[in-house]
Amino acid sequence: MSIEIVTIGDEILAGKTPNTNVTFLSKELSLAGHRIERHTTLPDDPQLLEQGLKEALQRSSLVIATGGLGPTIDDHTRKIAAKLFHSPFHYDEAVAADLERRFGKTLASLKDQATVPTKAKLLVNRVGTAPGFYFSSEGKGLVLMPGVPVEMERMFKDQVLPLLSAPEKTYLDVLHFFALIENQVDPLLRELKSAHSELDLGIYPGHGVLTVTLKAPSGKLLRFAREKVEGAFSSHQFSSPTGKVEDVVHQQMIADKKTLALAESCTGGMVAQHLTAIPGASEYFLGSIVCYSNSLKQALLHVSEKTLKEHGAVSQETVKEMLSGIFKATPADFGIAVSGIAGPSGGTADKPVGTVWAAMGERGKPPHIFTFQARGNRQTIILTTTNILLGTFQKHFL
Amino acid sequence: MSIEIVTIGDEILAGKTPNTNVTFLSKELSLAGHRIERHTTLPDDPQLLEQGLKEALQRSSLVIATGGLGPTIDDHTRKIAAKLFHSPFHYDEAVAADLERRFGKTLASLKDQATVPTKAKLLVNRVGTAPGFYFSSEGKGLVLMPGVPVEMERMFKDQVLPLLSAPEKTYLDVLHFFALIENQVDPLLRELKSAHSELDLGIYPGHGVLTVTLKAPSGKLLRFAREKVEGAFSSHQFSSPTGKVEDVVHQQMIADKKTLALAESCTGGMVAQHLTAIPGASEYFLGSIVCYSNSLKQALLHVSEKTLKEHGAVSQETVKEMLSGIFKATPADFGIAVSGIAGPSGGTADKPVGTVWAAMGERGKPPHIFTFQARGNRQTIILTTTNILLGTFQKHFL
Repeated sequence: MSIEIVTIGDEILAGKTPNTNVTFLSKELSLAGHRIERHTTLPDDPQLLEQGLKEALQRSSLVIATGGLGPTIDDHTRKIAAKLFHSPFHYDEAVAADLERRFGKTLASLKDQATVPTKAKLLVNRVGTAPGFYFSSEGKGLVLMPGVPVEMERMFKDQVLPLLSAPEKTYLDVLHFFALIENQVDPLLRELKSAHSELDLGIYPGHGVLTVTLKAPSGKLLRFAREKVEGAFSSHQFSSPTGKVEDVVHQQMIADKKTLALAESCTGGMVAQHLTAIPGASEYFLGSIVCYSNSLKQALLHVSEKTLKEHGAVSQETVKEMLSGIFKATPADFGIAVSGIAGPSGGTADKPVGTVWAAMGERGKPPHIFTFQARGNRQTIILTTTNILLGTFQKHFL
Repeated sequence: MSIEIVTIGDEILAGKTPNTNVTFLSKELSLAGHRIERHTTLPDDPQLLEQGLKEALQRSSLVIATGGLGPTIDDHTRKIAAKLFHSPFHYDEAVAADLERRFGKTLASLKDQATVPTKAKLLVNRVGTAPGFYFSSEGKGLVLMPGVPVEMERMFKDQVLPLLSAPEKTYLDVLHFFALIENQVDPLLRELKSAHSELDLGIYPGHGVLTVTLKAPSGKLLRFAREKVEGAFSSHQFSSPTGKVEDVVHQQMIADKKTLALAESCTGGMVAQHLTAIPGASEYFLGSIVCYSNSLKQALLHVSEKTLKEHGAVSQETVKEMLSGIFKATPADFGIAVSGIAGPSGGTADKPVGTVWAAMGERGKPPHIFTFQARGNRQTIILTTTNILLGTFQKHFL
């Protein structure tokens, strides 16, 4: 099967938004063992769009397209796809009823959205208004999904991935690590590959996290490779079906019936935000004191002026006091405190941009205090720090 | 002139690396007034690569390609391009001398890199080893650049952009709004378009924010269209070169020399995180009390147990007390307090999922307290709430 991903939208072609949908789909398909042969991005212009979709269906057996499914004036994908697959339209009462239930009778686009191509399998949009479609005829398939990432991602995982026939029989493992970078893993993978050329190995670096994929023609070789990789990096490994380290913290904290509170400086609320992105976080997560200024570190966390003056806000002493402060200010069982230099300014020779100090622990027990150097720009430093904190916390305390 | 950007590499197709080159090139070309009609990503496989480049040259007058120019085993682009343009190769003494000067005689790839297609204009690589090429024949152009971003970006700006003829003159405006959805704007744009078919109109919906682009063949028509759109939605408009509403808050707070602190419940730290993503946020942003649990609302913000019991955590009364609490707990000039139901559970008939209450204001002055209904799933409700809060804050107080 030759797979082509088509993303639709002038805003992508104009470089206004990075094409995150194509990266998401490529990664998910690859992790499921599929091979993608081409990416295409097409404009909203109906003529160029039709020509582009036609070409894609000629050369590829499965075309997965996102974008251009909304009710607005510049959305043409649905009509063009119906034309290419010779499908009439009908008004679907079930779609209309579902939209009405979720968005009310006044939804302006209700009638348009509920008018769907008769020959397509409907893909339910559980998040937004525009349904997706799967057209299939004479060995060619076309999946249409909305372009809004959260809508598309849910639809893809729930309804599109299960539609795809399983790729050629291979043995696949996906391993997750935190606080590891590509250069640390690459030599071992090269060594494995040169000893066993039939292995298909991949590294997907995140920020502060990293995923390794192992594919092998036999379960025995897969096990061998996995044991090599796990053996080398076991102290960095975490186990999460989503690849997100916050999921491990979430599940384990709830299972342990313990509570957590944070004191965040350089991460600016991102650790809290990653944890609260998961439904049910209120079962264990009490909150975070985002003490971006020294005044709040003193007022809310009782960090002493002396410590801030003598050691600076980014220091072992400050994060230790921040952690004590969070245990005073909240009834939490566990606490995490972090302070660092996210940049681009604020770095010194002693403490360059990316320097992070963290303290974490359980109430009444000695804390784990450590430092690390996060790399990249401001955004990646904050994200890397968030992932390393959560990874270290689950490894040490859960 | 129809422009197509072709990026080459298996690692992009597998979703291992986001395609930053295509975003860079699209943005630079668009800002220079060029219109891009298509993006294509092709694999390293020589047959699929040749087929893809041939197709691109058939449909587009200028193909700008990156990747596959290195000396390694899986780089075939140079040979394929030479074949398509019927060009022989020759050993270029000047390229060899330049490489030797910069990298020394021992550079393994020197001989390969200095063997160049005779019919192509050479694009000098001032950063790395692989030169670029510009093939041109019978109204078709093909630019080949290396895939390493820093090498490509320098080559593109210095040598490729100047090669391109100036684009057709059009007049462009980009307008930003908060607390507006696509369905509210679409009817007016349809009306404008049907009265003036030469207008080129686009809606880019975000979550809680929305961007409208207007393109017209004359400045007069552009002004007319802009005044119509701005007139209809002025109370929702904000002005930001990036389209991010947090940038307005950031710039204006610093200009006004005022400080801000937050009390976040349902947003779980996302408002703080959006503000601190911008370098220099510490100039005005003191911090956020992410009081996810009622216990922290009481302990840190002095929300009374009575209020929480009688009115609930998501209520006018609670956010009012949260705002008072933030002024007590911090020295901030301005405060924003928010509480809502992000879902998926926790909704009731009275207060369905997506119900948000917010209070914001300046110390010592009457607060602005309001409620709204955010739509979507947990993630989009949190993001929508964040953008609506920041949009409302800058409109009312900055």
